[in-house]
Amino acid sequence: MNYQKIITSIQNQLSSIQYTGKVASYIPELETIKATKFGMHLHCINSGHYHFGDNTEKFSIQSISKVFALTKAMLLLGDELFERVDVEPSGDPFNSLVQLEYESGIPRNPFINAGALVVCDVLVSKLENPKNDLLDFIQKLADNKNIAINRKVFDSEKKHSYRNMSLLNLMKSFGNIKNDIDIVLDLYIHLCSIEMSCEELSKAFMVYANGGKLLYNQEQIIPSRKVKRINAIMLTCGFYDEAGEFGFRVGLPGKSGVGGGIVALYPGQYTVTVWSPPLNPKGNSELGMYSLEQLTTLTGLSIF
Amino acid sequence: MNYQKIITSIQNQLSSIQYTGKVASYIPELETIKATKFGMHLHCINSGHYHFGDNTEKFSIQSISKVFALTKAMLLLGDELFERVDVEPSGDPFNSLVQLEYESGIPRNPFINAGALVVCDVLVSKLENPKNDLLDFIQKLADNKNIAINRKVFDSEKKHSYRNMSLLNLMKSFGNIKNDIDIVLDLYIHLCSIEMSCEELSKAFMVYANGGKLLYNQEQIIPSRKVKRINAIMLTCGFYDEAGEFGFRVGLPGKSGVGGGIVALYPGQYTVTVWSPPLNPKGNSELGMYSLEQLTTLTGLSIF
Amino acid sequence: MNYQKIITSIQNQLSSIQYTGKVASYIPELETIKATKFGMHLHCINSGHYHFGDNTEKFSIQSISKVFALTKAMLLLGDELFERVDVEPSGDPFNSLVQLEYESGIPRNPFINAGALVVCDVLVSKLENPKNDLLDFIQKLADNKNIAINRKVFDSEKKHSYRNMSLLNLMKSFGNIKNDIDIVLDLYIHLCSIEMSCEELSKAFMVYANGGKLLYNQEQIIPSRKVKRINAIMLTCGFYDEAGEFGFRVGLPGKSGVGGGIVALYPGQYTVTVWSPPLNPKGNSELGMYSLEQLTTLTGLSIF
Amino acid sequence: MNYQKIITSIQNQLSSIQYTGKVASYIPELETIKATKFGMHLHCINSGHYHFGDNTEKFSIQSISKVFALTKAMLLLGDELFERVDVEPSGDPFNSLVQLEYESGIPRNPFINAGALVVCDVLVSKLENPKNDLLDFIQKLADNKNIAINRKVFDSEKKHSYRNMSLLNLMKSFGNIKNDIDIVLDLYIHLCSIEMSCEELSKAFMVYANGGKLLYNQEQIIPSRKVKRINAIMLTCGFYDEAGEFGFRVGLPGKSGVGGGIVALYPGQYTVTVWSPPLNPKGNSELGMYSLEQLTTLTGLSIF
Repeated sequence: MNYQKIITSIQNQLSSIQYTGKVASYIPELETIKATKFGMHLHCINSGHYHFGDNTEKFSIQSISKVFALTKAMLLLGDELFERVDVEPSGDPFNSLVQLEYESGIPRNPFINAGALVVCDVLVSKLENPKNDLLDFIQKLADNKNIAINRKVFDSEKKHSYRNMSLLNLMKSFGNIKNDIDIVLDLYIHLCSIEMSCEELSKAFMVYANGGKLLYNQEQIIPSRKVKRINAIMLTCGFYDEAGEFGFRVGLPGKSGVGGGIVALYPGQYTVTVWSPPLNPKGNSELGMYSLEQLTTLTGLSIF
Repeated sequence: MNYQKIITSIQNQLSSIQYTGKVASYIPELETIKATKFGMHLHCINSGHYHFGDNTEKFSIQSISKVFALTKAMLLLGDELFERVDVEPSGDPFNSLVQLEYESGIPRNPFINAGALVVCDVLVSKLENPKNDLLDFIQKLADNKNIAINRKVFDSEKKHSYRNMSLLNLMKSFGNIKNDIDIVLDLYIHLCSIEMSCEELSKAFMVYANGGKLLYNQEQIIPSRKVKRINAIMLTCGFYDEAGEFGFRVGLPGKSGVGGGIVALYPGQYTVTVWSPPLNPKGNSELGMYSLEQLTTLTGLSIF
Repeated sequence: MNYQKIITSIQNQLSSIQYTGKVASYIPELETIKATKFGMHLHCINSGHYHFGDNTEKFSIQSISKVFALTKAMLLLGDELFERVDVEPSGDPFNSLVQLEYESGIPRNPFINAGALVVCDVLVSKLENPKNDLLDFIQKLADNKNIAINRKVFDSEKKHSYRNMSLLNLMKSFGNIKNDIDIVLDLYIHLCSIEMSCEELSKAFMVYANGGKLLYNQEQIIPSRKVKRINAIMLTCGFYDEAGEFGFRVGLPGKSGVGGGIVALYPGQYTVTVWSPPLNPKGNSELGMYSLEQLTTLTGLSIF
Repeated sequence: MNYQKIITSIQNQLSSIQYTGKVASYIPELETIKATKFGMHLHCINSGHYHFGDNTEKFSIQSISKVFALTKAMLLLGDELFERVDVEPSGDPFNSLVQLEYESGIPRNPFINAGALVVCDVLVSKLENPKNDLLDFIQKLADNKNIAINRKVFDSEKKHSYRNMSLLNLMKSFGNIKNDIDIVLDLYIHLCSIEMSCEELSKAFMVYANGGKLLYNQEQIIPSRKVKRINAIMLTCGFYDEAGEFGFRVGLPGKSGVGGGIVALYPGQYTVTVWSPPLNPKGNSELGMYSLEQLTTLTGLSIF
């Protein structure tokens, strides 16, 4: 497979594509990012790295961090976790309260906000220093100590978290949040505020493409059975209310964030991260979706 | 891979498993089927057939027929189809009107009843003899002229189709049904009433595991791009409100029916059909789910 | 009370009021009515008639007929009726399926379409000739043999009844429609197609202002207890999703129709009918609402 | 009218009626109230007081306080208030988030929790000392300085206010709460924690039966137009999801609370308060509803 040629072809196509999406604006720190930023970084298990654009520039990973949080919680808690959060696609916007009320405070899956908040509640219960422990875990996955939060993003998210507070209080009223609401929210926002580059994300997600082993030292840090489950959840629930469209057009497990990043992976083959801030109406990076669709089309590789 | 040993192991486990599900009872013809029926038929591209139990006994395929209908409609219409039916998981029961009303008559996906009815409407518009043409298509996929409907099931479903009539009328009020409601419903029920055995279904679904080519003569009858899309929709939407659970536990594209059948497939490797009438509360075969989970666990093969 | 002066004052105000509403257009026969038509007819128990404009011109009474149907069904069935249709305001549009699905086929009240269809089902079960019997009943209330349906409206409604068919089929699937769907729909549309003038409606509704007695001969044809209940339902449910607003601004029991008519009544005092085709976004006559608000403000009479 | 005889008759009937309802248990302070408590106090404009049972014992007025809060807000703000809270019946439980999410943070009416919280937000914006000012207002209506909150109830409600916090945060995310959430919630709980007896409530509500004038000194403290509107809202929205049933069976404007109290009124005639802690499944006092239905039946007086 000539990956370099494929990546170059995508780069060439993008120069002529006009995006219509909008950069996330609910906090000022995200809105100031230049809409024309674009990075792509493909990390192949057997054949190394292919990339172009702003692939080494750090950006706010936002909801992509939910995959790390879920992984850590699954390592700490086992299947009990899934009594408190389901694994079904939601059919509703990522921050909807409606489903939660109809289903008695059990979020549909760990990648909608409510579900990620339950995951954070588990982490608060189980970890001494949840913020540090999670950051350590991500740094280990990425083999990189230089991963941290953006303090401005953190502070700004804190000021705009009414809807997440609403979700937390509703779930607390159903008994599905065990810890103090402020502490759980603090961890959640901390995770959303982490900054990483395309290159770093592709490296950190390699564990999911490599059966639970770190590629750089082959240490098995996640049981392969759990990795498969996380990949399945990414495929069915990783793209808000557009998971079906992504499975349909791209056909890879993955996770997006409102910072404009999307990570996807082909088990046994590669991880790939794209970053382009303008979002489509469903909240996923418009050019990111397009690039990944091109990648699976041009490589002819698809899990389907 | 010693498939025979794996299949035998599943057969042995099943003898000691107690099911708690209930056979579908909304029409008398389904209710009379013996709950203890069980068949499994694994059809491998490279290594032939492995099976046990009632794998050659015909049963009512019900919603499994929605895959055939979707395929035919995609061959006839192209991407316009997806302006009339979405490809997102529903998060609601298979026959819910709520989503349809909130989303202006556009069904969430082609495997909920509303979506399959829109697909049938397309087939009525495009085909001379929709019933015969569909049956011919399925017979060709299965390389078997001996596939037909069960007339008693057909007549009985006709008498219990108020909810489908409700869906059709609601979509007609939104302009998303073009033909006479009775004709569309007639085709829909015709497809649900088809009877096939596990063996026949595994053969008919081989086209989806084989990149769109018939395995028995290598004729490409579905473009590979469309096969991938159909597989993606099966994975994200093939199990009513339990698609996530199935992806999570089994990790294969597939489709279930209330007759107790489930077909699943591993692209490039195999198709497998299980049949066991008792259904879990979400409407999927309880022992069928269990058997498929065992299959992917014991083979170690998973698309994730 | 100088009713004539009050009515004249309203007439004068209306000449300078600009409406922004739209004439109902879902069937051509309603759309052709001139938007500038306006009639008002106040019928006082003690002091006779006050009116202006097109008060003697017949128009399509549409949903106003639901009051007559409910009354007849209450006379035939007693409180059992309210096991099949509730008496709560709906909080949803008049033709919504959502509530019906969540509440197992029991309509919220007899004035939303679903509820009126259940009422018609009761009438079909209990009456020999439901269409004639209802028309006789209305003619008796109005002391007027010259009340009939508009055949063009009837035929046109028949062609645009997909949503009502959807409601009927959904309720039939829940067992809350006992008769053939077509027969129930036929009666429902028949009632909606009746034409009456403001004058005739004010006379026919006098029975509700007069404790169940016909004013013209003092025959008690509805028990006073049932009249009170019907009035209560009119107040809480008579204006689609705007019942609260009407209670708040006007404060009288009443019923509106998409033909632009509104009948209201003050128990022991008067009935009043207004007719102005342009509807506000909630489906009630815009100038009709305004005129009735003026009437209760200027008379200083209000049940509150 | 022989009110004494009617009241005695109700008292006699109650001794043989078995209730099936349950005392509110979401906070321990309400659960400890004896289920057999019963008080009734009828206060007639022209003919004085009729009562029996525990009519002078104070109980937690809970949601009945929402009428006082709404009145004060309407005096302070005028019709702008109704841009932030609607006046339609809700068709949903009193503390539902679903409606609020679908309707962009505008509560359906001022008597569901969300609406009362918006009213409290207005009071926080407009008043120097909202808690004291409201208590002064209620004391003036009741002509009684001996009205205060129950501190234990207040503290206990504070600890069980997750759902109200959820509502507040959701509305804040839509911009419909202007003040600090904790301050608004504090005022809301303060009002719910007020204790009054049947006698005191009947006296305090007399202003709504008397056209806005205090009966004891004929001071007009609420414009009559606003009183009518408040009465209309009480009739259409005063009984959670059972407003229609109450209008249908009782036919008076009123307001209930989970403490088991119900106040109702007949404009120009009387106010009446009943107190009986066991609640029916919709959250209204079971025997209270029954007693008021008897009252309007036996008096033959009804606004309908």
